[in-house]
Amino acid sequence: MNKGRLEAFSDGVLAIIITIMVLEIKVPHGQDFSALTPLFPVVLSYILSFLYLGIYWNNHHHLLHSAGKINGNILWANLHLLFWLSLVPFTTGWMGENNFAPVPVALYGIMLLMCSIAYWILQHLIINRSGHESELAHAIGKDIKGKISPFLYLAGIVLTFVNPWISGLIYVLVAFMWLLPDRRIERIYETKG
Amino acid sequence: MNKGRLEAFSDGVLAIIITIMVLEIKVPHGQDFSALTPLFPVVLSYILSFLYLGIYWNNHHHLLHSAGKINGNILWANLHLLFWLSLVPFTTGWMGENNFAPVPVALYGIMLLMCSIAYWILQHLIINRSGHESELAHAIGKDIKGKISPFLYLAGIVLTFVNPWISGLIYVLVAFMWLLPDRRIERIYETKG
Amino acid sequence: MNKGRLEAFSDGVLAIIITIMVLEIKVPHGQDFSALTPLFPVVLSYILSFLYLGIYWNNHHHLLHSAGKINGNILWANLHLLFWLSLVPFTTGWMGENNFAPVPVALYGIMLLMCSIAYWILQHLIINRSGHESELAHAIGKDIKGKISPFLYLAGIVLTFVNPWISGLIYVLVAFMWLLPDRRIERIYETKG
Amino acid sequence: MNKGRLEAFSDGVLAIIITIMVLEIKVPHGQDFSALTPLFPVVLSYILSFLYLGIYWNNHHHLLHSAGKINGNILWANLHLLFWLSLVPFTTGWMGENNFAPVPVALYGIMLLMCSIAYWILQHLIINRSGHESELAHAIGKDIKGKISPFLYLAGIVLTFVNPWISGLIYVLVAFMWLLPDRRIERIYETKG
Repeated sequence: MNKGRLEAFSDGVLAIIITIMVLEIKVPHGQDFSALTPLFPVVLSYILSFLYLGIYWNNHHHLLHSAGKINGNILWANLHLLFWLSLVPFTTGWMGENNFAPVPVALYGIMLLMCSIAYWILQHLIINRSGHESELAHAIGKDIKGKISPFLYLAGIVLTFVNPWISGLIYVLVAFMWLLPDRRIERIYETKG
Repeated sequence: MNKGRLEAFSDGVLAIIITIMVLEIKVPHGQDFSALTPLFPVVLSYILSFLYLGIYWNNHHHLLHSAGKINGNILWANLHLLFWLSLVPFTTGWMGENNFAPVPVALYGIMLLMCSIAYWILQHLIINRSGHESELAHAIGKDIKGKISPFLYLAGIVLTFVNPWISGLIYVLVAFMWLLPDRRIERIYETKG
Repeated sequence: MNKGRLEAFSDGVLAIIITIMVLEIKVPHGQDFSALTPLFPVVLSYILSFLYLGIYWNNHHHLLHSAGKINGNILWANLHLLFWLSLVPFTTGWMGENNFAPVPVALYGIMLLMCSIAYWILQHLIINRSGHESELAHAIGKDIKGKISPFLYLAGIVLTFVNPWISGLIYVLVAFMWLLPDRRIERIYETKG
Repeated sequence: MNKGRLEAFSDGVLAIIITIMVLEIKVPHGQDFSALTPLFPVVLSYILSFLYLGIYWNNHHHLLHSAGKINGNILWANLHLLFWLSLVPFTTGWMGENNFAPVPVALYGIMLLMCSIAYWILQHLIINRSGHESELAHAIGKDIKGKISPFLYLAGIVLTFVNPWISGLIYVLVAFMWLLPDRRIERIYETKG
């Protein structure tokens, strides 16, 4: 199995997802600044999703770069991750158009949760194949960020029924937590050169 | 003819098809969970098509990887396959929006049938060029899955007028039959290293 | 200037154009075969445009493969070609939705004419840079197909006001004339190996 | 960090942006030339944005080609640039549909301004990493075009409230100023060979 083509296909899908999202920002009919006002929550959710897709692209890139050989299971775990990521434009559009109403915000959190689980499965399969004594396994180590993110998403899903802006804040905080490239894995390259 | 650019172009088209399909899941106007109910068949058909496109990408990848030199006929047989695959978002959208009504389910089956025929033609041309004594020809061997799939699609097309859910079940079963990567071709790489 | 990245970018744009065209085939609201009837001209024009984009991708691939160094003029001539090709989904959609009415058929011909002129300019610049004694210049030779196509498109544009189906027939014939890969350029590779 | 994958991802996103823009040119309902009249400003703004995206692709290509190693900051500065560029289809559509009304023309200018700032940040980080004595730093030199563009966009944003066609003219002039490939950076390759 050719790792390069898997990377290229994933990059292609991610590039398309991150770009077609903009089609959910519908061109308004008015021609004044006031016509842009209802777009405010749409653009806000667009920025959040853009950040998350950037984070996934970045971490996915590091993960596959460190991966050894690819097998059928890894390939399908990767498609499984792309499936949940492909729902980002839909959940983003629904959340933005409804001005961060509780249920759309919960669905956005469910999508983030499923993406994080799909990513964890992919990472798990790649580590298993590389061996638990591999550089990658050591680099990921305890994977604290990966372990607490799902619980934070869960908190966001539940708390939206108290106030959706709490959930929004949680999603933003998790994004910022991930925004830094995964220094643990990056360390490998630096020693590798 | 450069095989690499043919692979890259096919991957690009497949990545776009698999991603723009999500544009057929229209953002609903309500903001409750009930607004998502009519989307249930849409999402179901989306998942099925996502699986099929994943299978085609995977098998196409194996096939071209094993292919020797490419000629004009192979190039056009590949574009012919991409043509039928490009109709996946349309047939998926029609089937989903009409809640698996008989005629849309039949059209979906026709699309699957045409894709399988187009794939068979492409495979046939590649084997012919590689030679019937080539590793690829031996690896594909009797190609039982490839031979029975069209008949199962045909059964699905006919049986939708009895009950479309029977057809849906057949399409799902064929997908699961293919879901495993083609071990026959994979064996080549493992011996090749 | 890196030729590989120019090829990759052009392939990306062509892959997207050929795929988003399918978004112009709107999912019909009915659920019977009769709901598909008004789509007949839409699908017909889709097939024609798919053929033309396949031809352009194929010939473009051969042309750039044979090209030597790329400069700024070639880069912009290439973007100029991509500009006219990017209008294919629009002209295809208008022609299909209006059931091959005279004016949309004329506009489709104008688009084909502009693409052929843009391709000629690109080819001219690449030959100029490679030298008129280069293999590429010899392979293209008199370029009869390239020289008569614009006149056939012109005939199609004018004759649509007599009967648009004459124009449609001309566009189909030109496509079939080009459908064969450009044997002249292909000959280079075969001797090159 | 693999520079190749960053280039490929950026190219993918740019290829998609430049192509999905055409989806903003909605197929008109009439079938005469008069049906195309309201599309005139839409097509005009499409051409302008196509030029700008071509310029960004070209300059971005030169910049990354000359870049040394990539780090996390450069990666996020690149995503930041892609974010603003991803808004091109939206601002283009709004400007075109409203026939170059003052506010949409101002928003288009704001988008151009933000793209130029994001590009400047990316260039700054790449030069910092390459060293101020590097070939790239010398090649970019005083960067007069990069320094005056933001002020010209600012002039366009303000002057649209006098007459939006003045702003349109300014945007066109800046595009033509950049249309020539960046000779300064190109010089490096020519000496490098």
